[in-house]
Amino acid sequence: MKVIRNIKKIKTILSKARSEGRTIGIVPTMGALHQGHLSLIRRARHDNDLVVVSIFVNPVQFGPKEDFKKYPRDLKKDALACRKEGVDIIFYPPVKEMYPSGFRTYVEVEGLSTVLCGASRPGHFKGVATVVAKLFNIILPSRAYFGQKDAQQAIIIKKMSSDLNMPVEIKILPIVREKDGLAMSSRNVYLNKEERANAVILSQALAKAKKMFHSGKNSREVILAVSGMIKEKKGAKIDYICAVDPQGLGPVKNVKNSILLLLAVKFGKTRLIDNIIIHGKKN
Amino acid sequence: MKVIRNIKKIKTILSKARSEGRTIGIVPTMGALHQGHLSLIRRARHDNDLVVVSIFVNPVQFGPKEDFKKYPRDLKKDALACRKEGVDIIFYPPVKEMYPSGFRTYVEVEGLSTVLCGASRPGHFKGVATVVAKLFNIILPSRAYFGQKDAQQAIIIKKMSSDLNMPVEIKILPIVREKDGLAMSSRNVYLNKEERANAVILSQALAKAKKMFHSGKNSREVILAVSGMIKEKKGAKIDYICAVDPQGLGPVKNVKNSILLLLAVKFGKTRLIDNIIIHGKKN
Repeated sequence: MKVIRNIKKIKTILSKARSEGRTIGIVPTMGALHQGHLSLIRRARHDNDLVVVSIFVNPVQFGPKEDFKKYPRDLKKDALACRKEGVDIIFYPPVKEMYPSGFRTYVEVEGLSTVLCGASRPGHFKGVATVVAKLFNIILPSRAYFGQKDAQQAIIIKKMSSDLNMPVEIKILPIVREKDGLAMSSRNVYLNKEERANAVILSQALAKAKKMFHSGKNSREVILAVSGMIKEKKGAKIDYICAVDPQGLGPVKNVKNSILLLLAVKFGKTRLIDNIIIHGKKN
Repeated sequence: MKVIRNIKKIKTILSKARSEGRTIGIVPTMGALHQGHLSLIRRARHDNDLVVVSIFVNPVQFGPKEDFKKYPRDLKKDALACRKEGVDIIFYPPVKEMYPSGFRTYVEVEGLSTVLCGASRPGHFKGVATVVAKLFNIILPSRAYFGQKDAQQAIIIKKMSSDLNMPVEIKILPIVREKDGLAMSSRNVYLNKEERANAVILSQALAKAKKMFHSGKNSREVILAVSGMIKEKKGAKIDYICAVDPQGLGPVKNVKNSILLLLAVKFGKTRLIDNIIIHGKKN
């Protein structure tokens, strides 16, 4: 396994691989790898001849008051995990390599990137779309793997990729959860013991929502109940709870085909997100 | 020579060519091909195994009051010219193929796209950058050819391509002029006889500017003189005359390394642009 920090160098290596007809899978990450990431890497390993994991804490997707500086970084641990999963290359560029002085080009998926998480994190999805476009152009992967945990990000990247005709197949894999149901996230390490215990309410609330939708309740009723459950937990501060159409992110009232229920909740200083897709027929 | 209207189809053909190790050159155009375009095509023919000319009048780069509808279109004539130059494929997609319903992803080179022509044509360069990004992703060319005539467009596309790590070499070729000096443009056909005669002042003014810069005059003096020459022509309406740094488009006073003098002038309803790069040492 190679750790490569230089764009030109990785381009040269991958260009050779492509000319030999090898397929390339990329798993774009910000490091602090957990079981969620590893599920993406395993799938990439299964599907492709060559697996690239990018580890880049992307400054452009953090707001000025967000946790860019304290975001967990541990290359050694991440590299060990990648090696164990048979990753071929870790792409680990410095910020200056990705954003040299004078950088000024951005990709934006208009309409989808300013709602939900985009409303509380202005510029976040523009930063995500831009860095993913850059990674796609550098790696030219056959397939790229993202987690359903970041549901809005997944929708935006799929839309960007199809709108701009990017020559890559986008694969979205299911949320991986802790035993008690908490969605895996690199930010879970920020939680203290009490917050960690309380945070389990999110997955419980989503499970409850699924039952309610299936018993015929509408969005308003479901969101009210979910919101009530979460508010009971000390220190939980709801950012949003929304029921939307899984493609366009527009609001929906009842489950016909499918509904995406998304939530963002702060426990202390830590903002967690979770979501569930609920299909019209019980499944 | 093939004329292909479908994205999937051209992708399949070109993917085969690439896998055989053939290089691909693209000349993106809006059709109404003139000698300027042909100079790009000839260079692309010389440099690459396969030459693709795209002909697409891109609605997204036209303002609501601009000439999208009346922009000259003549596929038959263009196809004849392309065949004569040994073009392999004309990519001629319908608008719906490039912008299906729900399209919402745009590329913007911030700062460079809202000045000069971008100031009088809001959204123009966002439309240009977006369609060029799409064409690059569809064609995956080794090289792409643009004319220096659209100087700001050339700068923006080079910046976009380098900022987003697009795997393509951008080639900018010199302006091709009519015998009397008027820069070739598809919009020249809009000019009536008098306007056509008057329009020659643009290239004459730029030649005068070069002499003045080389004799030590500064930007203010040069622009004043150029502007005076143009204003003498009946019906000429100056949009802008600017002396800028050829990379960043920032204002410059004196020629040290090089200066880009740009102008946009309306003759009747027709807006023409022209420019010259002047180097510090006489050349």
